[in-house]
Amino acid sequence: MVESWSFLDTSESNFRPLVVIELAKGTKEETIEWFTKRIVDKKANGGAQLLIKPLVTENGVENIYLVGASHIRLLLGAEAVGLVKECSDNSMRTFTYSSRKTFKHFADDNHNFLTMAECQYIIKHELENLRAKDEKMIPGYPQAKLYPGKSIVRRLLTSGILVQIFPLHDREELKKLCYSWYGRVKIGYQPLDAIRCYFGETIALYFGFLEYFTFALIPMAVIGIPYYVFAWEDYDKYVMFATFNLLWSTVILEVWKRMCAILTYRWGTLLMKRQFEEPRPGFHGVLGINPVTGREEPVYSSIKRQLRIYLVSLPFVCLCLYFSLYVMMIYFDLEQWALDYHKENESNFSSLMLYVPSIIYAVVIEIMNRIYRYAAEFLTSWENHRLESSYQNHLILKVLVFNFLNCFASLFYIAFVLFDMKLLRQSLATLLITSQILNQFAESLLPYWLQKTYNRRMKKRTCSTKTDVDLSLAEQVTMEKEMGTYLGTFDDYLELFLQFGYVSLFSCVYPLAAVFAVLNNITEIYSDALKMCRVYKRPFAEPTANIGVWQLAFETMSVISVVTNCILIGMSPEVDALFPDSKMDLVLTVALIEHLLLAMKFIMAFVIPDKPRDIQMKLAKLEFESLEALKQQVRAFQMQL
Amino acid sequence: MVESWSFLDTSESNFRPLVVIELAKGTKEETIEWFTKRIVDKKANGGAQLLIKPLVTENGVENIYLVGASHIRLLLGAEAVGLVKECSDNSMRTFTYSSRKTFKHFADDNHNFLTMAECQYIIKHELENLRAKDEKMIPGYPQAKLYPGKSIVRRLLTSGILVQIFPLHDREELKKLCYSWYGRVKIGYQPLDAIRCYFGETIALYFGFLEYFTFALIPMAVIGIPYYVFAWEDYDKYVMFATFNLLWSTVILEVWKRMCAILTYRWGTLLMKRQFEEPRPGFHGVLGINPVTGREEPVYSSIKRQLRIYLVSLPFVCLCLYFSLYVMMIYFDLEQWALDYHKENESNFSSLMLYVPSIIYAVVIEIMNRIYRYAAEFLTSWENHRLESSYQNHLILKVLVFNFLNCFASLFYIAFVLFDMKLLRQSLATLLITSQILNQFAESLLPYWLQKTYNRRMKKRTCSTKTDVDLSLAEQVTMEKEMGTYLGTFDDYLELFLQFGYVSLFSCVYPLAAVFAVLNNITEIYSDALKMCRVYKRPFAEPTANIGVWQLAFETMSVISVVTNCILIGMSPEVDALFPDSKMDLVLTVALIEHLLLAMKFIMAFVIPDKPRDIQMKLAKLEFESLEALKQQVRAFQMQL
Repeated sequence: MVESWSFLDTSESNFRPLVVIELAKGTKEETIEWFTKRIVDKKANGGAQLLIKPLVTENGVENIYLVGASHIRLLLGAEAVGLVKECSDNSMRTFTYSSRKTFKHFADDNHNFLTMAECQYIIKHELENLRAKDEKMIPGYPQAKLYPGKSIVRRLLTSGILVQIFPLHDREELKKLCYSWYGRVKIGYQPLDAIRCYFGETIALYFGFLEYFTFALIPMAVIGIPYYVFAWEDYDKYVMFATFNLLWSTVILEVWKRMCAILTYRWGTLLMKRQFEEPRPGFHGVLGINPVTGREEPVYSSIKRQLRIYLVSLPFVCLCLYFSLYVMMIYFDLEQWALDYHKENESNFSSLMLYVPSIIYAVVIEIMNRIYRYAAEFLTSWENHRLESSYQNHLILKVLVFNFLNCFASLFYIAFVLFDMKLLRQSLATLLITSQILNQFAESLLPYWLQKTYNRRMKKRTCSTKTDVDLSLAEQVTMEKEMGTYLGTFDDYLELFLQFGYVSLFSCVYPLAAVFAVLNNITEIYSDALKMCRVYKRPFAEPTANIGVWQLAFETMSVISVVTNCILIGMSPEVDALFPDSKMDLVLTVALIEHLLLAMKFIMAFVIPDKPRDIQMKLAKLEFESLEALKQQVRAFQMQL
Repeated sequence: MVESWSFLDTSESNFRPLVVIELAKGTKEETIEWFTKRIVDKKANGGAQLLIKPLVTENGVENIYLVGASHIRLLLGAEAVGLVKECSDNSMRTFTYSSRKTFKHFADDNHNFLTMAECQYIIKHELENLRAKDEKMIPGYPQAKLYPGKSIVRRLLTSGILVQIFPLHDREELKKLCYSWYGRVKIGYQPLDAIRCYFGETIALYFGFLEYFTFALIPMAVIGIPYYVFAWEDYDKYVMFATFNLLWSTVILEVWKRMCAILTYRWGTLLMKRQFEEPRPGFHGVLGINPVTGREEPVYSSIKRQLRIYLVSLPFVCLCLYFSLYVMMIYFDLEQWALDYHKENESNFSSLMLYVPSIIYAVVIEIMNRIYRYAAEFLTSWENHRLESSYQNHLILKVLVFNFLNCFASLFYIAFVLFDMKLLRQSLATLLITSQILNQFAESLLPYWLQKTYNRRMKKRTCSTKTDVDLSLAEQVTMEKEMGTYLGTFDDYLELFLQFGYVSLFSCVYPLAAVFAVLNNITEIYSDALKMCRVYKRPFAEPTANIGVWQLAFETMSVISVVTNCILIGMSPEVDALFPDSKMDLVLTVALIEHLLLAMKFIMAFVIPDKPRDIQMKLAKLEFESLEALKQQVRAFQMQL
């Protein structure tokens, strides 16, 4: 079917499968022929100029295709996506094909100059940028309309002809990565650069943040332990801990920006220019003229979207928040009931029963969070945002507000309405620990176990005793295409965000929270690593320069925690005792200290530079060079006159 | 002396004087010859390729030179400085000589395509970028060392050979501008576009902000008047006013960002790329290698600078702050004395005497502000900052902190230590009005009067009866070179900043402040306009895209005013009466409201987009086009293969 190779390739032996395309069963011949032809066609003819090969398995042809590209095609693609690589003089520069010789490790025969993840990202980019020319519809599917400039792959995906596109694992590399990452028990850093080479920057940055955050929590945990061991209950010790905590949380968030700049500079994404954002696949509307691009494409009125947001989404979110508060009140009834029960018949069983409502509530919170997550995704998708970034922002806002209230409302209620510090401590501990256990289980162990059993069944069926590495390509593809899809770092960051809330919001009543957070994060690193390597399909690499909106979310949380901690300290009986004469003085002092702390936070955020000095220098140098180059051009032009 | 015209010019009749260079009297012949040769030399030889002519006055040659440039030279210079102009299709684009035909109003014989201010900015840029080649020193002055790449003009300025460089006024244009700006009494907007064409973007943006701010204060003033007229003293009316004030101040600052984007988009500076910053003229150090540019230039260790800042500047500022507080305490003694005097012998004279301490204090504050200003400039200059921007930031920080304390400390003391609302209102009024009168007098009227008398004397001496417009070039230059130099918008913004403080910090006790501010600003527009047009030398245009650090300063002030107003309202006896049982409830309610207001401010700042939708679209369109152009290049290159 696919016989005409693009002329950039000398022989089929060059072919290294990088990306798998799975078409729906029963896709029409003419569609397949047209699609594969467009993929291999020359750039000049509007094709992607890639290589494609059908996968032949034991069951014959299964509408699965392997996509690769010649070395030179990948290099040109690297220029098109604006990849930034290291030069021979150790500076980072945007890769261009004409300046390729100046880059470190570049050689015409070095096919490892681009990492496999980069190659796969380039292929994905080229496939997505395969645009309709004069086709009015997808051949064979008259109902699947096309118009000039529309991404073919996105249309195929939305019309269900294309089932999935995913990058292949490199079994050899993966084994090496797994070993250095979590294969042996060791104390030390994660191989972030190797993770980045294999999974791309977004995922490597998540693991970088997780590791950084864990290390940053260690001082808090270390200071927190003696509070538990010696059962310290002194007021000034708690104040000390809370103050340290508040300043520390500001410092770590600021320092993370610097760490992030160091990492992403080394990876080249700090310098990478943002690509122009295409409409997201799910976006639909009536055909119109896009005022920015001047192209004919679906447009959807902003007013309609606003109406959907304010008349449907907003009331729905409010309803969910109300429901969450309602559930919280039921929890308090249960709590009261358990307390009464314990009082009536005091026994070991009844004292255990005291913890049951909290545990049930924690489980219910987790379930509600997960259900709400689906609802939020559905609603945000229904709001029909044109850009993925706008979609993500609305989704994150919805989810964050609900999760924040759902997880912390009961704690706020206990702290500031019931004034019951003992119950607060107990609830906090139960919620934190239960949610950590549930998360670890639901996110990694369960999928891993399912995957294992599935693999075992598969292997039994094929009667093979080969290890993963020895699998044939066909077997590997068949296995990988059945694996789950990793849906991005959203849930992982969200988990860390809530954990940060548990640790910082009420730090002065429960210093031990940081200890649990550290313990959880250490296992989290392992279970997340396992999840990435063994449970899910390999995800496409996604270049990124920072953790985006999460930085803001964490900073907001740390501001809120200043307020809560100051109030908690002000409410403690020990502080009360310091102001025997006047409650007023107490409140005023607390308010003053709170304002000073907030002011200090803002000043610190302002004073600590976001990028370390040497990165600033390197960026300044690059800017200087590009300005000089521009000047040279102008000068050269003037001299011609 | 200067005979060889650059070959870009066909005849001397082309020459239009734009910029004046004044050399010190007695400058050596060889220096003048070398300098003028470098100015006219071709770009290829490292010259500036400008035109220069000595000015011949009645007293003969006076070492004053007129600089101009051919039309084509200016167009090439416009490309070099990265000027953004409007295209025929109404979009704003970076000007390049090769694409000149696509720009609006461009014609090879249209010498008004670039405004005079733009031409002067280009010439200044070209003169400043005239760099030493192999000269080791300025010819004739062996002590004035040079090294390759060093700006010749800056060296001449620091060694005192070059007295000044300033752009010439265009008497014709100026007359038109003056008429439309302040020449007739009218109600309406200022001719901001004309101001921008004549004085450049920085000054036009200041006047734009002044006008915007005045309009924005009108609602506050209108609401404030009835409080005075009807002598409203009700608590809820004050609360209403303060709440309105607080939200309003956030709204106006956010909306200003949008206004600013609209203005600077139209002027092209929103899109203008930042130029690489050269060391400021006063910077000195030992010769070393700049790590960014790789050029040999003076370097000054950052540690030494830090030491100077923390061991000298910081203690000095603290000492000044202490001194300012000490003066404040003297003022309170005086106030007490006047009160006692008034009690003992009650008369009209003694009741007038009540205002005397405040007035004296206001005058002393102004004097201290001005003296401190010089000290701060001296210190910051001594700190030896490499970049002008870093120098400016340190200077602004020093001056802002001191002025804030100096102006508002007494008010804070009266409000939160003495709890004397009547005295607060009286002090606020006296300070505000006195400082406004002093400022108007010192800034505009005094220099104008001095200038007038000087001009009259000059005219008497030359026995001429000509009006300004009819002056010969020589007379014009002689007159303008004696005018004062406008030192930038710093003092003007500072005045507005302090005014904003008087209006917003204690708005709930003195609603009339906004009225005075509006009245002051209306006259301020006229007196500042007069100052720009008649009192000072024409300043060089300076492209800018926003009001920079002042936006932050105003926003900080509005955050502080939330706190002060909430406390003031909480302290009022009417509010006290609402909580008869518990002072605690009162304080907690006030604190809660304050936090809600602050949260609302931050959310508003976050939600209101910084740029209006149509500007965002235009910017997106430009970005899209440049990315498309890049893609086309890559594609064209790939097709060649």
